[in-house]
Amino acid sequence: MSAKAPEQLLQEAQAWWSTAIIDIRPGEIEVRGYPIEDLIGAVSFPQMIWLVLRGELPSREQAALLEAALVSAVDHGPHAPSIAISRMAASCGLGVNGAMASAINALDDVHGGAGQQCMALLSTVAARMESGADPEAAVEEELDRFIAENGRIIPGFGHRFHAVDPRAGKLLALVRDAQRRGTVSGRFPGIAISIENSLQRRKGLRLPMNIDATAVIYCELGFPPELGRGLFVLSRSVGILAHAWEQMQQGARIKGPMPPEIPFKYVGPARRRLDAARAGRKQVEGER
Amino acid sequence: MSAKAPEQLLQEAQAWWSTAIIDIRPGEIEVRGYPIEDLIGAVSFPQMIWLVLRGELPSREQAALLEAALVSAVDHGPHAPSIAISRMAASCGLGVNGAMASAINALDDVHGGAGQQCMALLSTVAARMESGADPEAAVEEELDRFIAENGRIIPGFGHRFHAVDPRAGKLLALVRDAQRRGTVSGRFPGIAISIENSLQRRKGLRLPMNIDATAVIYCELGFPPELGRGLFVLSRSVGILAHAWEQMQQGARIKGPMPPEIPFKYVGPARRRLDAARAGRKQVEGER
Amino acid sequence: MSAKAPEQLLQEAQAWWSTAIIDIRPGEIEVRGYPIEDLIGAVSFPQMIWLVLRGELPSREQAALLEAALVSAVDHGPHAPSIAISRMAASCGLGVNGAMASAINALDDVHGGAGQQCMALLSTVAARMESGADPEAAVEEELDRFIAENGRIIPGFGHRFHAVDPRAGKLLALVRDAQRRGTVSGRFPGIAISIENSLQRRKGLRLPMNIDATAVIYCELGFPPELGRGLFVLSRSVGILAHAWEQMQQGARIKGPMPPEIPFKYVGPARRRLDAARAGRKQVEGER
Amino acid sequence: MSAKAPEQLLQEAQAWWSTAIIDIRPGEIEVRGYPIEDLIGAVSFPQMIWLVLRGELPSREQAALLEAALVSAVDHGPHAPSIAISRMAASCGLGVNGAMASAINALDDVHGGAGQQCMALLSTVAARMESGADPEAAVEEELDRFIAENGRIIPGFGHRFHAVDPRAGKLLALVRDAQRRGTVSGRFPGIAISIENSLQRRKGLRLPMNIDATAVIYCELGFPPELGRGLFVLSRSVGILAHAWEQMQQGARIKGPMPPEIPFKYVGPARRRLDAARAGRKQVEGER
Repeated sequence: MSAKAPEQLLQEAQAWWSTAIIDIRPGEIEVRGYPIEDLIGAVSFPQMIWLVLRGELPSREQAALLEAALVSAVDHGPHAPSIAISRMAASCGLGVNGAMASAINALDDVHGGAGQQCMALLSTVAARMESGADPEAAVEEELDRFIAENGRIIPGFGHRFHAVDPRAGKLLALVRDAQRRGTVSGRFPGIAISIENSLQRRKGLRLPMNIDATAVIYCELGFPPELGRGLFVLSRSVGILAHAWEQMQQGARIKGPMPPEIPFKYVGPARRRLDAARAGRKQVEGER
Repeated sequence: MSAKAPEQLLQEAQAWWSTAIIDIRPGEIEVRGYPIEDLIGAVSFPQMIWLVLRGELPSREQAALLEAALVSAVDHGPHAPSIAISRMAASCGLGVNGAMASAINALDDVHGGAGQQCMALLSTVAARMESGADPEAAVEEELDRFIAENGRIIPGFGHRFHAVDPRAGKLLALVRDAQRRGTVSGRFPGIAISIENSLQRRKGLRLPMNIDATAVIYCELGFPPELGRGLFVLSRSVGILAHAWEQMQQGARIKGPMPPEIPFKYVGPARRRLDAARAGRKQVEGER
Repeated sequence: MSAKAPEQLLQEAQAWWSTAIIDIRPGEIEVRGYPIEDLIGAVSFPQMIWLVLRGELPSREQAALLEAALVSAVDHGPHAPSIAISRMAASCGLGVNGAMASAINALDDVHGGAGQQCMALLSTVAARMESGADPEAAVEEELDRFIAENGRIIPGFGHRFHAVDPRAGKLLALVRDAQRRGTVSGRFPGIAISIENSLQRRKGLRLPMNIDATAVIYCELGFPPELGRGLFVLSRSVGILAHAWEQMQQGARIKGPMPPEIPFKYVGPARRRLDAARAGRKQVEGER
Repeated sequence: MSAKAPEQLLQEAQAWWSTAIIDIRPGEIEVRGYPIEDLIGAVSFPQMIWLVLRGELPSREQAALLEAALVSAVDHGPHAPSIAISRMAASCGLGVNGAMASAINALDDVHGGAGQQCMALLSTVAARMESGADPEAAVEEELDRFIAENGRIIPGFGHRFHAVDPRAGKLLALVRDAQRRGTVSGRFPGIAISIENSLQRRKGLRLPMNIDATAVIYCELGFPPELGRGLFVLSRSVGILAHAWEQMQQGARIKGPMPPEIPFKYVGPARRRLDAARAGRKQVEGER
């Protein structure tokens, strides 16, 4: 083992798991410094989420905006792969934790990452504006850069199913209300509209914000982009759980993507014979 | 393919994914019948969780009790395997969705299932009482049965670290408040106390309720046991996300359970030579 | 902290992670006592799997039988939920490790556990026979017990798609070959046939063994049932990986269970208005 | 629904799940065109892995090289986060599929991706050489580029624990043997040595190849980098399964990263009182 003294090694083992989130002693649990029994019944669940993630409690107005965003994204139906995965996993015998795990895992860059990417885009434009750039020019340059690096799908704008996403308008209206009350700066909805305008000029059609209007809220509230994805996961987990539970009650066993009577399409080689020499079996037979 | 008509097969494909949770048409999203834009900003996140899981909105008082339970269970520190898994997974390069998936998966029967099992136990006692059984006798008989089937650890009672769990007292006080206001029946705290009393007689020591005092709340609110576990997962996901994010910011690469300088203990066979005949390599060499 | 001396605590930390599988020192890696460099190129992958799982190397004949079972179960097409999950997860942006994780998770009791359950059934019958029970009576009694406890689906027998599973006959023929060469006892195929006979008497139709004919092999080779499931997971992981990779090359984004043009079926409440009092919003509005 | 005819929609549903890997009809299973019953007992597990992943059977010599790589990477002990995760997950009540899922998920870019990244680096150098570049210059330029983009850790070279990795030398010797027999081109070991030489000039110390010497083999055999990671996952899954199973037999419940007597280190704010106004509870109390 190491030449270090046992005391030193032990301290390193403890420091290996250092955290500023929670402290625990027998009979005592403190979250970000607050005794847990003072928080229970006194703060809302969104306030608690904010406290645990960021270290301080939000105001009630900030928490209300976060709450609206969390409410908005809970579900988008079984055609979403995460929901389909949850239901199929439940039909294989997994409990809710297992079905949720398989499903949440799929909320990755393409399915769950658009909000995070949208937050990064909005934040870069905002940073340019803070450095004195002209707002329209900041949007144009960042869109040019984004498209060059990532292609023509701009995260947060347009939806393959909804021409107008009913969640976005309500979320953006709540941001404007919060701006009027001084809860948030209100600069991010403006950036979003500038992006919509620029996309309309570029593509000749209006691509309004989708569910990732939550990105506007999370940017206004000061969350980093990675936590924006985390908040989406917390929200969509509700739908994932509900669908797993509904599936368990429906009781199908080993549910695949389509009923067994509808076959998949095979596009590989036709039936062929195994070439024994290729498989190396003649020799193998001889060995025995 | 099937002899059925294409219309019939198509209808079966659609019915394969039937749900009562959500309906979606271009430009329209309805959750349990409510347009999503009516819910955003109007219901709390706990109300939305209840609606999605159960189909109807709770009263504000019911939602407040649910909210207290959700707040209480968000984290119990990095010694909990789910939290340690989240941090290690983040150090391997996973995003928050991936770290959360690996961690949530571990909230299984032993780590995350005690609440569910406690709900099942409380519910069975309550059902006996509804059928007219004497309360004390119902508790004794169900504990006898439970111990015979599952061993001597009674889910929800006692904690290997906290002699008194600071979360339980506050949660049970909130249930009693809710009972006084008529929000809940208040019969489950009584069952819990009867179990504590019986365990004290059986074991000679007091094992007060732990965090699974949430089971009392979830039973009072009418959730089935499986959803009790789901609600625990939703709550603990907050801590799992916070620890993944804290770990990402700390920046360690490939963090194992202890610092590399502290070795694990090997208890297997001593170094030994490979017996070539056993490995079957002589023959294999000859084949080439 | 503890009153124990640091040396004692450190030893406990090391013992916390004790293992008989592998030992590692700088420049040295020994698996079950064998230096890894002696194993590489000298033992087959199935031999290595056996060694790591069980502590000793198998004979080449034993390994050949294990190998046949591993080859047989690699894939059963995209209608299997695990394969569909792998493909959907890949289309969400996950790498192969993530797609495999979500999919492997679903190889649970119903989808991946039949082999394990079949092994448990075969082993119980074998244990009765060893205790001197009449073979037919042992089968009848165990089937009676199994059906009473688990219902009428007997794991390992019959297939909802294949009237005769082409994998089973070949696997059972290999067991009989191995029996003739003295590699295995050969008693488990006989038990399987007795079960088929009994099921035919009970149900009036022949339900021949399915892919879980591998259970016969794993029982003959002395694997415990839980490892039987593990071996199935190792085998099916190959197909899960291949489908994830094929999906990545096809390039679809966010692939749900059916094309978006085919809607799911909504069976919940019709569109309804949110009752403001129920949502508790009047009060909340007033608060602001 | 769509204006398309049901026949058209049905065909689209089938094509949604098209695959060239496997075809299935009642009583028939063909993998890449070969009837499964012809493959069982006739091809080795590594040959089957190759066939399923790539569409054609390898020669026995190619399969032997793949087999050596698969054998080499099965385990590196419980300090590896994937193995620790598997053991902790098993102690939470998960079956082997669940423990493997949580663990395999963590074989991501940092923990499981070095082989894939090493393959990409080796392949880029090889592509430059094919285009006529001087070998040494190709290595220098690619290393310059890689370091500029990714930092100074070169995947595949050096190990934080092993000064010399005992797996690498044996694997590279097998590649040279295979080159002499004409099985592979043998150009990738040369590229690897050129990289070692360049790193020695740059850093002043020798960083020999580690377990990702498997990357040399996979490049020689023509696997794309993404499948290199997949093969690592298949191999390490063996150790992950073995450790889950060993943990289940040891029987610990809810095993965290260190024994409970060794506390983690708390580095957050000291105990503090909840500011009721901040929490917004006065108003909430008033509401009731």
